[in-house]
Amino acid sequence: MAAPGAMADATGREFFTTRTVADAVAGFRPRRRTGTETVPLAAALRRVPAGPVTAPHPLPGFARSTVDGYAVRAADTYGVSEGLPGYLTVTGAVRMGAEPDTAVVPGTAVAMPTGGVIPPGADAVVMVEYTAEAMPGTIEVVRPVAPGEGIVRADEDAAPGAEIVPGGRPLRPQDLGMLAAAGVTSVAVHGKPVVTIFSTGDEVVPPGTAELKPGQVRDATATALAALVADAGGEPAFGGIVPDDPGVLEEALRGALPASDLLVISAGSSVGARDETAIAVARLGPPGIWCHGLAIKPGKPTLLAECGGVPVIGLPGNPRSALVVFRLVGMPVVRLVGGCLAPPPEPSTRARLSRDLASATGRLDIVQVRVDAGVAAPVFGLSALLSVLTEADGYIVIPEEATGLDAGSEVDVILYA
Amino acid sequence: MAAPGAMADATGREFFTTRTVADAVAGFRPRRRTGTETVPLAAALRRVPAGPVTAPHPLPGFARSTVDGYAVRAADTYGVSEGLPGYLTVTGAVRMGAEPDTAVVPGTAVAMPTGGVIPPGADAVVMVEYTAEAMPGTIEVVRPVAPGEGIVRADEDAAPGAEIVPGGRPLRPQDLGMLAAAGVTSVAVHGKPVVTIFSTGDEVVPPGTAELKPGQVRDATATALAALVADAGGEPAFGGIVPDDPGVLEEALRGALPASDLLVISAGSSVGARDETAIAVARLGPPGIWCHGLAIKPGKPTLLAECGGVPVIGLPGNPRSALVVFRLVGMPVVRLVGGCLAPPPEPSTRARLSRDLASATGRLDIVQVRVDAGVAAPVFGLSALLSVLTEADGYIVIPEEATGLDAGSEVDVILYA
Repeated sequence: MAAPGAMADATGREFFTTRTVADAVAGFRPRRRTGTETVPLAAALRRVPAGPVTAPHPLPGFARSTVDGYAVRAADTYGVSEGLPGYLTVTGAVRMGAEPDTAVVPGTAVAMPTGGVIPPGADAVVMVEYTAEAMPGTIEVVRPVAPGEGIVRADEDAAPGAEIVPGGRPLRPQDLGMLAAAGVTSVAVHGKPVVTIFSTGDEVVPPGTAELKPGQVRDATATALAALVADAGGEPAFGGIVPDDPGVLEEALRGALPASDLLVISAGSSVGARDETAIAVARLGPPGIWCHGLAIKPGKPTLLAECGGVPVIGLPGNPRSALVVFRLVGMPVVRLVGGCLAPPPEPSTRARLSRDLASATGRLDIVQVRVDAGVAAPVFGLSALLSVLTEADGYIVIPEEATGLDAGSEVDVILYA
Repeated sequence: MAAPGAMADATGREFFTTRTVADAVAGFRPRRRTGTETVPLAAALRRVPAGPVTAPHPLPGFARSTVDGYAVRAADTYGVSEGLPGYLTVTGAVRMGAEPDTAVVPGTAVAMPTGGVIPPGADAVVMVEYTAEAMPGTIEVVRPVAPGEGIVRADEDAAPGAEIVPGGRPLRPQDLGMLAAAGVTSVAVHGKPVVTIFSTGDEVVPPGTAELKPGQVRDATATALAALVADAGGEPAFGGIVPDDPGVLEEALRGALPASDLLVISAGSSVGARDETAIAVARLGPPGIWCHGLAIKPGKPTLLAECGGVPVIGLPGNPRSALVVFRLVGMPVVRLVGGCLAPPPEPSTRARLSRDLASATGRLDIVQVRVDAGVAAPVFGLSALLSVLTEADGYIVIPEEATGLDAGSEVDVILYA
């Protein structure tokens, strides 16, 4: 058994090693990845392609007009002007979605709608605005066009075999449009990582508990964590509420291992309960605990582990601390396991700090703020208070090396979406 | 019949009025709102509460310890120090999730876990770190505590009746946590606006069409629009592909009106097809067309209307133009109809422009860019090309009054998430 304390487990790692958040994000990189499944485009938004998708044929597939006008041979328009128009015989008209039935030969033009197929023989389209009907069946052209003008080439949107969607980047609306254009109606994506969420604590009862007994609190963390898991592209599963008993917790975690890609435990809030979480996790299997303790406020008693090929994250007991840490450290792990190589950008804004903020060096401080008219005002309150998070518009990060920030400093605020 | 052209409809509005994008976003404000439905918390992420939700009782509901230590009367610790500790008799221990069975009286202390119920008579908790066991049943205290220290008040997270979630702001993960803490397991939200998407054009075929005939293109726009609708909190519905025939389009739109909160039409790409869209929309009912033409590139031939109480948005035929316009003008309408008063913040970044960009005054220019190492490089290409959007990381907006931007200018890039 790997008991907590300054002990080494089978791999020689030490427990209770405190790490910086940057170390944790860069260094805690479990190798687990979800498998591949195929989903239809309608269900593929934000899913992570398992590999690049290439164009099966050129796109748009044929040379198209980009304007309403006349398909011509560019050479027939050279030197024309308002004062000296060129005259062309209109020999036909292209219909949308149909093959042209008339070729363009010297001295002729074919009427073109935007998006129509360029007829054989034509190498440019002159806009209708630069033409006029000179007599029935004849137009005058008052502006020359260069070869290729008014035309999108058959492979200009994608050459056959060109990558139209990269692997590892969540699919955006325009990516789905491009896949549809290419006739790719389903796509191979990474499975959503199944993240089983456990809450621990003798005082914790389900949110649906109408009447609380003295000392009981409803489980707020699991619900909020499930939402963060979904935001990171995972599939949350509820493991339930487990009492402060390492044996029971170990059994519950072990039971969830086979069906989980990640285990998350919001630990009991007392020191004893936190130790019990570490004991239960250490027993789950090698390689075991990677770190227990993060240099972050709030959120210090965080545990990162990997047991039997499944990453395990133990979060602080306070809901607010748990959510802060999971956003910074847990969501990247969910994305990693789900094959996401390019995390989506987060909303942020620059603002001026409304007041001085103290901070201890060697520790990342996460300060919740409201933002109004370019001013970021810290929302203070005990780390036990969830209202500090619900009142905030976002948060600022005071880096490890800083001793604080002065009022009026310009800060980057990560905004909650 | 309200035919297109510079004509006035029954309300005196003129057709073919070109508007700025700012005018359109501020001025095109249909009154339609979706109804209310009740959803469980597990399905409530990003849903829009129909009204504020208040705390049914104080939260956390009882005075709790924020530390591991001893519940005391603060007065019993006044003046103590390392050199002159105070001595208190330990008369009990609070268990997590249980009512204290011992009150604190002068000269006594009760052992407390973090999160435990403060016993009667105690007004502070001294951290275990500032105590030591002097002899069995007696502790020494080496640091004074003030009343309230180490305690979260019974209503400190929320007073009864306090608003814990505002109406009109999409629910964030922490909001769901707060609702769970309050025992609110379902929430009244606005229905998702049903947005019926029509594609028009004789050349347009479904994405599942394996073999294209000459001149045919697959419908890319509807798939991408559906994703944007979902991002804006709407429920996309596909109205199908309609040929370039105003009568058929009118009939299709009329059929979709009763079950739709918003109609979106990606118009045919030719001038004739655009006119036909306007004719069909104008026939749908009053008050009719609000504007036809937006001062934006790409995206000029945009139509905004309201017919029989349903907003109608006609988009340009080019997929890229359609998506640019829908993002800027359509998504705000989806949110409005869905009761969203506080649109979520968009990811953005500051970057330096890699090259000069020209722009016509009086028109908003949307330029797609790649962003690398703080440099925004425009992605150029015809507005018919979807690849310009898929290659871009985001876009910059050149305002109406600008004639262009110089290389090296600092620009705000709205990033695609």
